Amino acid sequence: MSESGLPKRISSLGEETARRQEDTSLLPMRAARAVDSDRLRARLQGLASFGAARPGDIHGGVARQALTPQELLARRWLATEFAGRPGYSVGIDAAANVYIRRHGANANAAPVLTGSHVDTQPLGGWLDGAFGVVAGLEVFAALDAAGLRTERPIETVMWTNEEGSRFAPGLMGSVSYTDPARLAAFRDTTDAQGVSFLQACNDAREDFAMAAREAGWRWFDAPLARPLHAYIEAHIEQGPILEARGLQVGCVTAIQGVRWYRVTVPGRSAHAGTTPDAARDDAQAKAIALAHALLEYGRGQDDDALRLTIGRWQCRPDSINTIADQVVFTVDARHPETRVLDGLEARLHALLPPGAAVDVLQHKPTVGFDPGLVELGRQACKALELRHADMLSGAFHDAMPLAGFCPTAMLFAPSIGGVSHHPGEHTHIDDLAACARALAWCLAGLAQDGDATPADSRNTDSSTPTR
Amino acid sequence: MSESGLPKRISSLGEETARRQEDTSLLPMRAARAVDSDRLRARLQGLASFGAARPGDIHGGVARQALTPQELLARRWLATEFAGRPGYSVGIDAAANVYIRRHGANANAAPVLTGSHVDTQPLGGWLDGAFGVVAGLEVFAALDAAGLRTERPIETVMWTNEEGSRFAPGLMGSVSYTDPARLAAFRDTTDAQGVSFLQACNDAREDFAMAAREAGWRWFDAPLARPLHAYIEAHIEQGPILEARGLQVGCVTAIQGVRWYRVTVPGRSAHAGTTPDAARDDAQAKAIALAHALLEYGRGQDDDALRLTIGRWQCRPDSINTIADQVVFTVDARHPETRVLDGLEARLHALLPPGAAVDVLQHKPTVGFDPGLVELGRQACKALELRHADMLSGAFHDAMPLAGFCPTAMLFAPSIGGVSHHPGEHTHIDDLAACARALAWCLAGLAQDGDATPADSRNTDSSTPTR
Repeated sequence: MSESGLPKRISSLGEETARRQEDTSLLPMRAARAVDSDRLRARLQGLASFGAARPGDIHGGVARQALTPQELLARRWLATEFAGRPGYSVGIDAAANVYIRRHGANANAAPVLTGSHVDTQPLGGWLDGAFGVVAGLEVFAALDAAGLRTERPIETVMWTNEEGSRFAPGLMGSVSYTDPARLAAFRDTTDAQGVSFLQACNDAREDFAMAAREAGWRWFDAPLARPLHAYIEAHIEQGPILEARGLQVGCVTAIQGVRWYRVTVPGRSAHAGTTPDAARDDAQAKAIALAHALLEYGRGQDDDALRLTIGRWQCRPDSINTIADQVVFTVDARHPETRVLDGLEARLHALLPPGAAVDVLQHKPTVGFDPGLVELGRQACKALELRHADMLSGAFHDAMPLAGFCPTAMLFAPSIGGVSHHPGEHTHIDDLAACARALAWCLAGLAQDGDATPADSRNTDSSTPTR
Repeated sequence: MSESGLPKRISSLGEETARRQEDTSLLPMRAARAVDSDRLRARLQGLASFGAARPGDIHGGVARQALTPQELLARRWLATEFAGRPGYSVGIDAAANVYIRRHGANANAAPVLTGSHVDTQPLGGWLDGAFGVVAGLEVFAALDAAGLRTERPIETVMWTNEEGSRFAPGLMGSVSYTDPARLAAFRDTTDAQGVSFLQACNDAREDFAMAAREAGWRWFDAPLARPLHAYIEAHIEQGPILEARGLQVGCVTAIQGVRWYRVTVPGRSAHAGTTPDAARDDAQAKAIALAHALLEYGRGQDDDALRLTIGRWQCRPDSINTIADQVVFTVDARHPETRVLDGLEARLHALLPPGAAVDVLQHKPTVGFDPGLVELGRQACKALELRHADMLSGAFHDAMPLAGFCPTAMLFAPSIGGVSHHPGEHTHIDDLAACARALAWCLAGLAQDGDATPADSRNTDSSTPTR
């Protein structure tokens, strides 16, 4: 199942689950009400101490890149509490994705998966990724506190290398999970110190296996592409929309399409003082005119869903008194509709001066989430009386590859000022707890019965024994 | 005599000299005719071997930054031939400027100075600076070959650190010469390895003193700000104008004014995918709009003398999917008229978005050369039947500080394609020889008699003994 050509899954799974809960809604509501904001905050703060730039200060920024000692210690710290409880086990797969499983009554039923990632940008905030993992564990704690048992297992996953800042590209863990053939290509990727992703994964697996042996965890080796009943990921919005509209939860309907272009504009280097206009071939002047026209075109669309960003700009030789002989800039263009991005791309090509070139660095179509599962999220918000709305995700998430693999959706919590990938990233604990409650309602509903679903019946043979 | 507030010298020196030559023009014409293009080329090629990126290939580029071993060896190689001849001596001053003196009949007369520099950009061409020095030495060789003696001494100087690429800013040697108080500030400047300009100068002086002792050169310690009868510098144009017009020599009337600005445009970093237009403060988009409007204003002036260059552009964090929180770009603006540069500067300020700032990095008025000396250059070209025209210098040269110190002018040779500061820098040897002949005509004329001029009478006491 490749990432390109993701199948459109319009499952009725979420709708059925929502209907059943109208009759037997005790379990989801009890789970949601057992979510404890103090416990959620304490675990988030504990997690933020791994890689904290200023120990004890969640707003000092977190440096916890993928598969570094800080990140592995953080994962072990999170796993350790649950691995020691009855009814839990911990698994790891070939891409070093770590799963904390809360067992269900039916060991053969495909699990409901939640989670996100605990790796950060070189200096990131305390909530990006971390919130989705800790929210999943808070649902476990809530279910435990309320003494609730589900039919299906529920797992909280910590995907490997979502950020892509140590090893490029990002989403390596979730992409490898959903399309194991991709892992082979990732393995040779190296970080700035020359450590390969394969080596880092193997070290992490060895580290986890040792921790498991020492502590006597219930432990399983997790195959990639295990069948899943559903995947719901909680995440901070990383944008300003929910806060601006005074909402608590965003029900994410899709991750909008993105195209990345690298535009190269050539010129001829010459002395700034001695070269008259008529004799100039100024790469910088041409690139400025091109970029200006492209941004003007974008503004002219008057479409709030269009996101157009020129993030990088490098000129050569970058000397104050030398006419540039080359400018390279990048364009990040996002919109849910292909025709809008096609129009922008056509305009970019039409605007190119002679000799200029465009390389496509990324070309991802909009990924729609499972309508039934999105509806389940809305039902959760209504039942819990949370201010919510549908929205698009402007950023990539592990849910993107998952959406081509099993019914998938996301729930967003607001980001204050829209700040993310920055030490200033923050969300009120009440909003985080509200999102975690909606997540608990959904997960408990999805797991409360273990009837065979298409996923279960298709894959029962390969479901993983828990030692 | 400070560099700012250069006095306007409208001397009659050149005009008088030209008039005298109408009567006794034998010496200038004989000197000019004795210039030998093969000898000129051979010495230029020899000089290009010091620091050649591809030994034996003058078009491979030359790496000979100021006061490096390559540059000092090149200077010694040039000095050695003449220091060993009768009638020559070599001097060095506190800024490590090296003077090769051809003695005149009148030891008390202020010298006529020519020359340029032999330092290069990190990888420069073979002619920038080098041509002016070798042209001066070719005039010496021509005078010697023709058996001609002048009344005044003529000196060929190799100014220190014209380029400013190892120690910033450039023109340190010539500025220190004309305004010795400036040397103190330059002394603490360090290169990328932490070597101070003072240390490099002292090492160069020691190196030259040792060479002089070993070879038994006639040698003098040269004070800064010695009085000069006149300064004429030959240089390649470093621009395309002479070649485009089919001319052999440019008679430079002035170095045009230049202003350097650093423009800082602030923004707010945010995620390219999650941040709608209304919530953006995109430094890059604002900087592009500003730069575009400024370049449009420049084009709208429809003034071929206006040179407007945006040479540097740096955005932060320079990430493809992050909105820039700062862009810094530079503006290099040149025009002979102050009012035009004032108009551009006012427009730049009017265009600034809120929070943006402009720092003035350089603000040099147009420096006019001595009209009489410029006329002398024209007379030389007429007498020698060279295709010539008046022109402005768009680039800085050592002649800029000298113009505030003594009657000064420059002669330009064409640059093929206007290419300079690049291995591809080139000029036909016939054009180089034509310019050297015009230089010989002027120098011989200026030095042919040693009557006391204002400079002589003003400074006879401090004229320098030759050992």
